[in-house]
Amino acid sequence: MIPAETHLQIGSLLFEGVDQIDLTGPFEVLSRIPNATCRIYAKTAEPVRDLRGLRLTPDAALADAPPLDVLHVPGGFGQEALMEDATVLDWIRRQVAGAHSVFSVCTGALLCGAAGLLKGRRATTHWSSFHLLPFFGAIPVNERVVVDGNWIFAAGVTAGIDGALRLAAELRGDDAARAIQLQIAYAPEPPFDSGTPESAPAAILEQVRRSVQGITAQREATARRLAARLGIAVPLAAR
Amino acid sequence: MIPAETHLQIGSLLFEGVDQIDLTGPFEVLSRIPNATCRIYAKTAEPVRDLRGLRLTPDAALADAPPLDVLHVPGGFGQEALMEDATVLDWIRRQVAGAHSVFSVCTGALLCGAAGLLKGRRATTHWSSFHLLPFFGAIPVNERVVVDGNWIFAAGVTAGIDGALRLAAELRGDDAARAIQLQIAYAPEPPFDSGTPESAPAAILEQVRRSVQGITAQREATARRLAARLGIAVPLAAR
Repeated sequence: MIPAETHLQIGSLLFEGVDQIDLTGPFEVLSRIPNATCRIYAKTAEPVRDLRGLRLTPDAALADAPPLDVLHVPGGFGQEALMEDATVLDWIRRQVAGAHSVFSVCTGALLCGAAGLLKGRRATTHWSSFHLLPFFGAIPVNERVVVDGNWIFAAGVTAGIDGALRLAAELRGDDAARAIQLQIAYAPEPPFDSGTPESAPAAILEQVRRSVQGITAQREATARRLAARLGIAVPLAAR
Repeated sequence: MIPAETHLQIGSLLFEGVDQIDLTGPFEVLSRIPNATCRIYAKTAEPVRDLRGLRLTPDAALADAPPLDVLHVPGGFGQEALMEDATVLDWIRRQVAGAHSVFSVCTGALLCGAAGLLKGRRATTHWSSFHLLPFFGAIPVNERVVVDGNWIFAAGVTAGIDGALRLAAELRGDDAARAIQLQIAYAPEPPFDSGTPESAPAAILEQVRRSVQGITAQREATARRLAARLGIAVPLAAR
């Protein structure tokens, strides 16, 4: 916990092709943390579109971001284009070095991995990219929210809400997180039980896997290339 | 269910002071419905800020929206300013008249009520405004998602995700909704049990109630004025 009187600078990374709820789910929670400023940063201050077309606009460019107490890295499809982008990777590394907490959501973990920050770290990501974590030296943990030191990893997409509540509790205590949970009426009742590869009907899993096959193959190629560059010996099971 | 080959126009209403996840939670689900277009409409095409400062930009102005198959009305604080806005209320009424489905999230229900569309309808809204539903002639139902004819009501804020999955199932069948649930990894694990007034610790409930007291009083005044105008006899219990 951080003393209530210490102001917190919370910053989320935004990019073209983000999965918007990786950003907006946590924003809903983090923007309600008492005595905190929650801002969105991107390579430039121009508006972008999420992977389904929602328009989002950063508050400022990366270069204009203050040193952050909390860095939030969402995922989606668009992180792929940033995984060899020196400006973005340098910014992430610099912010992580000074941050109190780092919060990765979904395939945001791959971007943090590309920055060389996951070596030896227990981590998680979206189920469709889970097998790629060892390419970045991470130890994959199949849980919805994984805490490793001052890092919090949320698995796929909507897990960002669960992870953000954990983060709010780490920063301001359990009761602050409970108050936010009540404000946002977060007592979920999914009408189906199909949110994980383990619970989804086999035919649905097969169909969704097929629909992301192209993207997964591309992610594998990038991960393989980066593993070589980062000098990571990929365990046999992940090859 | 609607035949798979029938294209669906889905439109969300955006306004200054919306609670962004009332819009973005459903967008995450609805934008994945097969053979559908998901667009955001506002009074003008200018960017707006949500109640915590997130910048959102509509795709087009209300006047440029096509006839919608699905109308999605989010809530927040900003709907209050629209509840006596003839342009917005007329647009809602016109779209509802032609829509296959109407989807209200959180205090979006109050805006639909202000348009005179909730008379005799089973409905829900955010817990802090639940007692105001009878002012619009609605029958309050204390459930997270309420289906009444071709209307779906989601209660507070994050309930929009649950409601949107129900809507996706109504439109394209259960398996389509299950596939979306798996894509967005919606298997929630809230770290606390504090998402409803019934489950939250009493002290937390009291604190959150106090924090929205001013807004609730303003909403009550508006509801009272509109009830008189709509010719609704408010039941004694709600006075």
